Amino acid sequence: MITLEEKKLQGYKHKLLSFEKGEHKSQEVLEINPRGQLPAFKHGDNVLNESSAACLYLENQFKSQGVKLTPDSPAEQALMYQRMMEGLTLTDKLNSVIYYDLLVPEEERHDSAVKRNREELATELNLWEGYLQKVVAAGSYLAGGFSLADVIVFPNIAFAFRFGLSAGRYPKLAKYYSLLKDRPSIKASRPPHWLASPQGFDILKDI
Amino acid sequence: MITLEEKKLQGYKHKLLSFEKGEHKSQEVLEINPRGQLPAFKHGDNVLNESSAACLYLENQFKSQGVKLTPDSPAEQALMYQRMMEGLTLTDKLNSVIYYDLLVPEEERHDSAVKRNREELATELNLWEGYLQKVVAAGSYLAGGFSLADVIVFPNIAFAFRFGLSAGRYPKLAKYYSLLKDRPSIKASRPPHWLASPQGFDILKDI
Repeated sequence: MITLEEKKLQGYKHKLLSFEKGEHKSQEVLEINPRGQLPAFKHGDNVLNESSAACLYLENQFKSQGVKLTPDSPAEQALMYQRMMEGLTLTDKLNSVIYYDLLVPEEERHDSAVKRNREELATELNLWEGYLQKVVAAGSYLAGGFSLADVIVFPNIAFAFRFGLSAGRYPKLAKYYSLLKDRPSIKASRPPHWLASPQGFDILKDI
Repeated sequence: MITLEEKKLQGYKHKLLSFEKGEHKSQEVLEINPRGQLPAFKHGDNVLNESSAACLYLENQFKSQGVKLTPDSPAEQALMYQRMMEGLTLTDKLNSVIYYDLLVPEEERHDSAVKRNREELATELNLWEGYLQKVVAAGSYLAGGFSLADVIVFPNIAFAFRFGLSAGRYPKLAKYYSLLKDRPSIKASRPPHWLASPQGFDILKDI
């Protein structure tokens, strides 16, 4: 949705589904995405269900419309692709802590695994804290101008703070979050229930 | 390496490292990749350590050199990005079976988890078997011509057969494998020890 907004594709159809109600396994979703996962996205007859794939496709199809999300310089372009794909690892590590009980059946849960997942997430977040060190000092984005790297990585950072991440412990992540949170594309795509209760969870507060 | 070969960038420096000897944690790797993982790749001063990121970058930087790895038609381009990113899920599911003992400490292992991982891998492989149904009938690739989707997905398929996947049970995957295995870029990038002992493992034979 951030990419759709940046590319001035407003007017796209979208629908908020509930995981709790299992709506991601509905026939409506399965017809687009046989994995029964979100996002499930269609542009004309073209189906793109991986968010990074959908972003790359939209950027390529609407190159000169709205904001250009791929930097021109080879150095920034390399950084963009690198951070974008590393963002998928950040997602995995956040999920392995936040959704541990959903991902692991009760009889297979171990305190040692919970501890290790939390330590690995802290290591991952500190890596990003380092990446952002120079970037936020310059008031800039992950790879020069606002790019696909921010499109993919920002929602992870927002997600982490929603789940209680400490701004004191991760000041660069917090700075990055506050630099981007009111960008129009990001405001327009914020989940409505996040606005209603901006922070109701503290699972990450001691990470 | 497949992308480097397709883009006629022969002459690139490369080095085969041993996981068993922990060479991926060497200073030489850590200087390029702070995660201590492979690949660790540098083009000039530009660092790209995620293989999909490196492929996207090389394709973009060398658009008109060697084989064009991005289709022109929107439909094929959508399919390319989608399959490419889904390939990362295939990698995860293969790893969770093949490297279970490496990934999970002994006291946290469960037969129920092993069974579930194997079932999830079978579901994943059957999904790809379906994707390839039309494709290999037409003697073609994952998204029209040979593209970044094949660059990312093929090594996973090769890996699965090396670990004993049954060609009888997955005939389309086997057909796809045999269509691509002698392509020059793929032959040039095949791990040398795979040639010495083409198939020494049977962990996937009953999947």
